Amino acid sequence: VLFQLLKKAQLLPTIEMNILQYINHLLDIGLKSNDEIPFKITKKEIEAGQIITNYDAIETKVYFLKSGIVQVSLLYNDDERILDFFFENCFLNSYTSFLTKQPSDVQLIALTKVELDVIDDADIQNAYKTSLLANQLGRLVTERLFINNTKREKDLLTKTAEQRYKELLQNRPDIVSLISINKIAKYLGIHPESLSRIRKSIGA
Amino acid sequence: VLFQLLKKAQLLPTIEMNILQYINHLLDIGLKSNDEIPFKITKKEIEAGQIITNYDAIETKVYFLKSGIVQVSLLYNDDERILDFFFENCFLNSYTSFLTKQPSDVQLIALTKVELDVIDDADIQNAYKTSLLANQLGRLVTERLFINNTKREKDLLTKTAEQRYKELLQNRPDIVSLISINKIAKYLGIHPESLSRIRKSIGA
Repeated sequence: VLFQLLKKAQLLPTIEMNILQYINHLLDIGLKSNDEIPFKITKKEIEAGQIITNYDAIETKVYFLKSGIVQVSLLYNDDERILDFFFENCFLNSYTSFLTKQPSDVQLIALTKVELDVIDDADIQNAYKTSLLANQLGRLVTERLFINNTKREKDLLTKTAEQRYKELLQNRPDIVSLISINKIAKYLGIHPESLSRIRKSIGA
Repeated sequence: VLFQLLKKAQLLPTIEMNILQYINHLLDIGLKSNDEIPFKITKKEIEAGQIITNYDAIETKVYFLKSGIVQVSLLYNDDERILDFFFENCFLNSYTSFLTKQPSDVQLIALTKVELDVIDDADIQNAYKTSLLANQLGRLVTERLFINNTKREKDLLTKTAEQRYKELLQNRPDIVSLISINKIAKYLGIHPESLSRIRKSIGA
């Protein structure tokens, strides 16, 4: 409901793209139907709280997130750190596991009801052998993931939790308004009480 | 000289690949000459201590590192953090700057004399429009960079400096033997004195 309200208030982009529109946008081309996409796409709906890819699973799918929110987390020393939140209109999976065929050290979980387009690894690998379009798409999506990860790493190295929270407020109001304080603290790598103090000190 | 000695002692891979051999290896193909590579390649030699890409420059090249060592560093609050060291047989540049056309927040500097193959952005972008091979190569190189960056980020989040140093000793003896203690401390994000203590405590 909050999601719908925010959308009506134009705090979130109102366009939910499908995978065809997203590929046309990213590659600046004009495919007319999913039949022109060089791999098979199946649809999947996931309920809130359900795991998409679990720790130690080997990732064999690529997902396009049509609607909803997905959390990516990392487990270590019995502690969980949230690495990122993904919103509609992006590709996601446990990408390192997908690429290396090693057990995933991250977990993908649906925070809301989630609509996904699903592509099989085997189909993608086949398309990569001969399809210019598949390789352009794979390259562009990986470039975006690289930029995203590199920014995250640099922020970790150079910014305090307070600075990172302020930037989150500014750049990703979607996260701050839709995700619980506990989860934001896990994302910032601090205790919820520390986040409360930061929020008070900056009047948020 | 140390470099040559280590090579003779087989502590380092003895094969220096050129870009053609590297592409053939990565894509599992059999190109016979550089003329079959879908972009123009020029050679460049850089002396030790020379900057390849500086802070705030906009990256317009891709480099293949044929021999030598390149350091990638990040500047913040008048402090410098070393992000990575690159050794022979890999592609490198300030990739986020190259992809986004924004000023680079990293610096690439030659720690030794360095031999590079150089490719121009314009040539790559042209090849990306029509060449299956160029897109396969771009995708595979970006996938490797992604895996590398993601591992680095997870190590930062989950491991102490001592753990990271031990793993460096085990997995990257090339770094530990060829790079100064001061630089390794900057890479681990600790003071050189702390690194000395760690080294003593583990008998290194």
